[in-house]
Amino acid sequence: MTFAVEVVVVLKPVVNDPQGLVVRDGLHRLGFPEVRAVRVGKHLELEIEGDDEASVRAQVEAMCERLLRNTVIEDSRIGSISVLSGSAM
Amino acid sequence: MTFAVEVVVVLKPVVNDPQGLVVRDGLHRLGFPEVRAVRVGKHLELEIEGDDEASVRAQVEAMCERLLRNTVIEDSRIGSISVLSGSAM
Repeated sequence: MTFAVEVVVVLKPVVNDPQGLVVRDGLHRLGFPEVRAVRVGKHLELEIEGDDEASVRAQVEAMCERLLRNTVIEDSRIGSISVLSGSAM
Repeated sequence: MTFAVEVVVVLKPVVNDPQGLVVRDGLHRLGFPEVRAVRVGKHLELEIEGDDEASVRAQVEAMCERLLRNTVIEDSRIGSISVLSGSAM
């Protein structure tokens, strides 16, 4: 089966986010003073072959540790897992 | 009230994503051959003052059109809106 997996990678709360500050200031200048804070992270959409959701989830968690996130400054979470196509046979 | 709003900005399906190709190839090399495709987008967390969810949603949609997404090559969607703090008075 093919699964679609969403992974969100965000800076840890204690890590400064200069990109977010720039976006916030830009929004203030464009007439959105109600914006208090912005933090910018990454959103990854993966298409993965797998047998079941549990094994796919475990694989994606391993990918996060190996490549997708910088474990020193970033947290990651799996947003959603859905079946794209295929049967269990 | 203060609302927490998640915005996801992704490349339109017809737009090439070289960054996603590099991540996919990296995962293949690290021993994850089951990854078929990767697309990389942005995940923004906004803290916004507002009266109610409907007005906050409208404001964030305006921000997406003005700054947060490149309307030529990117799509955006609001992932979630939740109340962080405050009362309706």
